[in-house]
Amino acid sequence: MANLLIAHGGAPTAVINASLYGAVMEAKNSGVVEHIYGAVHGSAGILSENFVDLGAVPQEELEKLLTTPGSAIGTSRTHLEPEDYQEMARILKKHDIRYVLFTGGNGSMDTCGKLRAACQGEILVAGIPKTIDNDISVIDHAPGYGSAANFIVQCTAEIAQDVHSLPIHVCIIETMGRNAGWITAAAALARRYKGDAPDMICLPEVPFDEEKFLARVKELSDQKGGVVVVVSEGLKKADGSTVAPPLFEEGRARYDGEVGSYLARLIIQKLGIKARSEKPGIWGRACAQAQSPVDRQEAVRMGALAARAVLEGTSGVMAGLLRRSTSPYVCEEVLVPIEQVMLEERLMPREFISEDGFDITDAFCDWCRPLLGCEPAEYADFKTDTGRKGVRLH
Amino acid sequence: MANLLIAHGGAPTAVINASLYGAVMEAKNSGVVEHIYGAVHGSAGILSENFVDLGAVPQEELEKLLTTPGSAIGTSRTHLEPEDYQEMARILKKHDIRYVLFTGGNGSMDTCGKLRAACQGEILVAGIPKTIDNDISVIDHAPGYGSAANFIVQCTAEIAQDVHSLPIHVCIIETMGRNAGWITAAAALARRYKGDAPDMICLPEVPFDEEKFLARVKELSDQKGGVVVVVSEGLKKADGSTVAPPLFEEGRARYDGEVGSYLARLIIQKLGIKARSEKPGIWGRACAQAQSPVDRQEAVRMGALAARAVLEGTSGVMAGLLRRSTSPYVCEEVLVPIEQVMLEERLMPREFISEDGFDITDAFCDWCRPLLGCEPAEYADFKTDTGRKGVRLH
Repeated sequence: MANLLIAHGGAPTAVINASLYGAVMEAKNSGVVEHIYGAVHGSAGILSENFVDLGAVPQEELEKLLTTPGSAIGTSRTHLEPEDYQEMARILKKHDIRYVLFTGGNGSMDTCGKLRAACQGEILVAGIPKTIDNDISVIDHAPGYGSAANFIVQCTAEIAQDVHSLPIHVCIIETMGRNAGWITAAAALARRYKGDAPDMICLPEVPFDEEKFLARVKELSDQKGGVVVVVSEGLKKADGSTVAPPLFEEGRARYDGEVGSYLARLIIQKLGIKARSEKPGIWGRACAQAQSPVDRQEAVRMGALAARAVLEGTSGVMAGLLRRSTSPYVCEEVLVPIEQVMLEERLMPREFISEDGFDITDAFCDWCRPLLGCEPAEYADFKTDTGRKGVRLH
Repeated sequence: MANLLIAHGGAPTAVINASLYGAVMEAKNSGVVEHIYGAVHGSAGILSENFVDLGAVPQEELEKLLTTPGSAIGTSRTHLEPEDYQEMARILKKHDIRYVLFTGGNGSMDTCGKLRAACQGEILVAGIPKTIDNDISVIDHAPGYGSAANFIVQCTAEIAQDVHSLPIHVCIIETMGRNAGWITAAAALARRYKGDAPDMICLPEVPFDEEKFLARVKELSDQKGGVVVVVSEGLKKADGSTVAPPLFEEGRARYDGEVGSYLARLIIQKLGIKARSEKPGIWGRACAQAQSPVDRQEAVRMGALAARAVLEGTSGVMAGLLRRSTSPYVCEEVLVPIEQVMLEERLMPREFISEDGFDITDAFCDWCRPLLGCEPAEYADFKTDTGRKGVRLH
């Protein structure tokens, strides 16, 4: 019997450990794997032969993976040179590892493909998709996205309750997703009723126009008092430059301007309206509390599917989901040739973005809703004249 | 039968609506109140006679108050002049309102006391404590704090899982609490094992020393790689000036520097270590997901206690909790004369702050733990050599 190794690459998600769980359980139950190794801190862990024996971990401890954010075996962002792949191939053979699974996004799938080439068919390699940004091409969506989407839905809906308690200011929420607006867009799912927050959504796919932005904020503030704006951390102007200038740059050290904070200042300065910004930041990819149950389950399935693929003799593929139906929500498990996804980046398509560029379309909401795995909470509200709640005296 | 009015003041919390629920239910069940009014947007709502009839709201809708963050009847921060109190007294009499409850912090208790004086004994007034900052004097703690504390515990514990997945940077989490460090301090409860995050806690009560701060960050980064630092938004230097200079000031418009972002830049510039900062901001006081069940229950009790007080003929008091025992956790309900709490601000006492000023003491943890209403989650971790989890090969 040969051994199987799992390594994580890139930033973690809320469900990357759920994929690890799925892969480990599949390998355990297969009866054809002797040792199931985890590379501690990704490809760096392979190169330093730093492995943990996941097959020997008690089941009770393994179950915790399902609700542990971050990566329980660590991850890496090491840039690999051609000779590193040769060295990895040598180390894998030395440890009698015949099966390798890489969990990650576009970059990790590239690593996956190059390692496979270096191993010349002696080792079977497969990818497990993972990214909060949802920018992997070919597949419908990647595990990690649904939970990041659900996080921003909760964050937006709850902050809106606060903003509307004392409707005197603009609150900007800055989300992750530097090039692709999938996470930012998901904030729209926080709406239950017409007029609910978010009031504006600014995507990195839409060139930022300061004048139009301020005009829309002014209009909303005049109408509603409290305004909730969700913006991507990666907003860019038409010329491709970032909206918020870098706060400093010294050689290789650089600190990007924080776009939420920058826009809040702009609103105060140019419109004289109170504004502030919030940035939950990396919590958006690390929140077990906001895990989408659908996302968690799909993460487990993708881990298991990739493990099954290599154990059945398939190599050079990434596990994935293709949507067959949205209502009812049905996704089909597929194996995608890795070269189709290596380093490709998928952005939000035009039909998911509203005409004025400050919102998304119903088509996006329909697509996104099933991935959250839950409905937004329903709140008590006795201060608005919608007539749907409470009894107003006049 | 006379009427009862409830008004909220100041910023909302995750459980201010739970106090509203407690007060409404007590008044409904008393059988001696004809109408239960909510002032829409606090004292501004009283002055504009903008009331909602809470007694006529269906029970099912009222129950939603328990898990609705923000204020369901709105709140206000209006500065009141002496003639406003006279006007409020007149309006209350006009609507046959004999009982008034104010939910709020130090400022609202001041309003409460002044309104009582203006009503000259004809109207019975009581306060319901509410503040995430926990800076109301005399009482053990105020409703709103436990949930804000629990929020920062979850945020810190989950972000730490991410930071330790790829231990190459310092992550700063900026918390609310401008003058009092109670919320910032609560982050310490995220620790389950020795060495767990947070690695440093910077309170507004401790004068900030840049050199010592950087030296400690450097030491921790050398030791651990990934470092999690929790800082109060209100950090000040020994001379009382803010650590982060204001980003701009123009007449009355001003945008305070964000201390987390400022310190992250300082670490990159002075130490050459990767750093970033996160600021969940007002979500920290508006997160129903992070509600402490103990906090929610106490909020209901405080609402009910204040209502009972006025209905039984007591006036000029604030409902409160005094701790009788920490293990088991027992708090006694008390009524505090309002003049004892008006505009007093309670900071963290010296015995709750560690000697070096970069952490808190076990005494604080013992005091704070029961307020969270839950234990921090236990995570899977196979990458550390603690020997308590997983099986390492070498």
